[in-house]
Amino acid sequence: MADSTAAPSLFIPLILGTPRQGRKSEHAARFVFEQVKKRAGVESEWIDVRELPLRFDDAGEQIKDAKFSETMKRADALILVVPEYNHGYPGLLKHALDSNLEEYIHKAVGICGVSAGPFGGARVIENLLPVMRELGLVVTSTDVNFGNIAKIFGETGELKDENFVRRVSSFLDELIWMARVLRHGRENIPPA
Amino acid sequence: MADSTAAPSLFIPLILGTPRQGRKSEHAARFVFEQVKKRAGVESEWIDVRELPLRFDDAGEQIKDAKFSETMKRADALILVVPEYNHGYPGLLKHALDSNLEEYIHKAVGICGVSAGPFGGARVIENLLPVMRELGLVVTSTDVNFGNIAKIFGETGELKDENFVRRVSSFLDELIWMARVLRHGRENIPPA
Amino acid sequence: MADSTAAPSLFIPLILGTPRQGRKSEHAARFVFEQVKKRAGVESEWIDVRELPLRFDDAGEQIKDAKFSETMKRADALILVVPEYNHGYPGLLKHALDSNLEEYIHKAVGICGVSAGPFGGARVIENLLPVMRELGLVVTSTDVNFGNIAKIFGETGELKDENFVRRVSSFLDELIWMARVLRHGRENIPPA
Amino acid sequence: MADSTAAPSLFIPLILGTPRQGRKSEHAARFVFEQVKKRAGVESEWIDVRELPLRFDDAGEQIKDAKFSETMKRADALILVVPEYNHGYPGLLKHALDSNLEEYIHKAVGICGVSAGPFGGARVIENLLPVMRELGLVVTSTDVNFGNIAKIFGETGELKDENFVRRVSSFLDELIWMARVLRHGRENIPPA
Repeated sequence: MADSTAAPSLFIPLILGTPRQGRKSEHAARFVFEQVKKRAGVESEWIDVRELPLRFDDAGEQIKDAKFSETMKRADALILVVPEYNHGYPGLLKHALDSNLEEYIHKAVGICGVSAGPFGGARVIENLLPVMRELGLVVTSTDVNFGNIAKIFGETGELKDENFVRRVSSFLDELIWMARVLRHGRENIPPA
Repeated sequence: MADSTAAPSLFIPLILGTPRQGRKSEHAARFVFEQVKKRAGVESEWIDVRELPLRFDDAGEQIKDAKFSETMKRADALILVVPEYNHGYPGLLKHALDSNLEEYIHKAVGICGVSAGPFGGARVIENLLPVMRELGLVVTSTDVNFGNIAKIFGETGELKDENFVRRVSSFLDELIWMARVLRHGRENIPPA
Repeated sequence: MADSTAAPSLFIPLILGTPRQGRKSEHAARFVFEQVKKRAGVESEWIDVRELPLRFDDAGEQIKDAKFSETMKRADALILVVPEYNHGYPGLLKHALDSNLEEYIHKAVGICGVSAGPFGGARVIENLLPVMRELGLVVTSTDVNFGNIAKIFGETGELKDENFVRRVSSFLDELIWMARVLRHGRENIPPA
Repeated sequence: MADSTAAPSLFIPLILGTPRQGRKSEHAARFVFEQVKKRAGVESEWIDVRELPLRFDDAGEQIKDAKFSETMKRADALILVVPEYNHGYPGLLKHALDSNLEEYIHKAVGICGVSAGPFGGARVIENLLPVMRELGLVVTSTDVNFGNIAKIFGETGELKDENFVRRVSSFLDELIWMARVLRHGRENIPPA
């Protein structure tokens, strides 16, 4: 139909950025994943850095995993759910991201920061900005900050703070818009 | 003609980001300004933070200058030419940029770093990233680094290192592409 | 007495980092200033960037103000009280700080971030780190984050959240310790 | 002797921060390691993130390796030799560093950046600053930037650019001074 060609389905995988045992960020990631899958015209995929078949005796594009790389190539945008470790990003997330490069160019990324304390990963988001840019990704300006994470989700991951429905919705609005804009650009606007 | 409506003229002002007397960054800025004006379908405007009618007894949107604000509103993208001062940005550039907000949203910005030393403002560009994002600007990933500035331009501003013709050209290619993409988005792609 | 020579009085001026009219950060700054002055063996001084005789037609050491420079030279440590503007530092604070350089070397600095929102300037503190380091200052690792500033102080500046007595106390403990350590180093430990 | 007790031997291990096969940064690390071992009153130890017995199914202090942790505890300062990957730090370096915390507090760290391009890891150093601070480390202000690394060392690691003898010497001067100052503080200056 004309409608579906005018607005083709977007592919926006979500990456849970830590292998930490007992990670509370998994609750946040599962919640955001449910929300993005509800969006019309958006497909997603769950990626857990703990499950990626990473090698640790090398780094960069040499350790590229074919399946992960294919997913990044197909993606129109990424969602990163990232706990803050010492004001920086989890090492294994970076190790995984560094394994690709051209796959990311001119795509959007939205970041959800997670922390046990009140600032919701505000600092890890800042710390990721230069990396995202160098990978060719455009970081949207509407983050979600899951601060005091233990108060937002219960033991089994049920949402206890309804404000996050609205916050994730705004986050997805901005990410989907930017994903559409950049996809149109990649497909239709020639290099200057 | 159909062609010109398909690709309307872009407005990309350039901001020279320091009032410092004897600033070498003015040579870099004038060179980039000449190059951007040569591009078909692009208009530019020279903005010098030294000339802006800024007030210094207040900060933020309260000191908004109507003309500067109107220029930011009309802009499709910005070029910042910024010397690195102590690994950060010049104060008066930030003072000026903070006077606007909505004017910048969903527009592109390309940054040219300038330094007396060899790294060409690589660090001030990193330092600007969180600010640019919060202003709603998308920083392109192709910078120009004018390092050892005194070797690149002569006393009267003449270019001595021809490599920068090509570098500025790549920088403008990327900026113009991103400006077109975001303009198409602002004008044609509805909020998600 | 032997004791007082063993622990000479420290000089720790406080800089309020914005000229913004109606600035709430002044409440935070006044509160921290009262607390630091109560410390035994510590002298302080109030510095307001709005009151500094800065010139705006130049930048860097060329605009050095003799009195400000003398104060920085005498200082053993600095306290910065800094609102977050667009995830970065206020321009006039940077303009003032850039006017000195050798005066800061091997001294301590503690940063109090201020914001209207919940994160208490967490991001401006990150944004200041490269600048502080290049100035030769050692940023302590215990910040104060005055988030939701309008809830912490009343209209006339009275403290409404007593938690900040303890937080500022820990902040000062760390800053004073680092100031003593670095002063001992400057005065007694020869270059390697 | 009185002299040796007055200036006890410093322990300054060096960490090579990437497991990448064919890493050129190993040449830089070996060179810096030779230089630091020549310093009177300084002991060092070679730590290679590729050799650390890290676990990758968890993160943070849960994966603490007893030997690495003991080394960090004994250290007065650290030297990090870090290649820049996409303007950020290698993931495995961060994964290793995050496994300790109290071990680092009030110690010095000096950073040597490495890159294939001309900027010598200038950007990864900025990216590490918030992490170092949160770990309680004081980053010295004199870096070494090994840019265009392939021109600085030959195939077998021999130094081809003698300027780096002097640069590493200045770097070590500053690091050793700060290590002495902080050690004196840890051992002799009580909390405020």
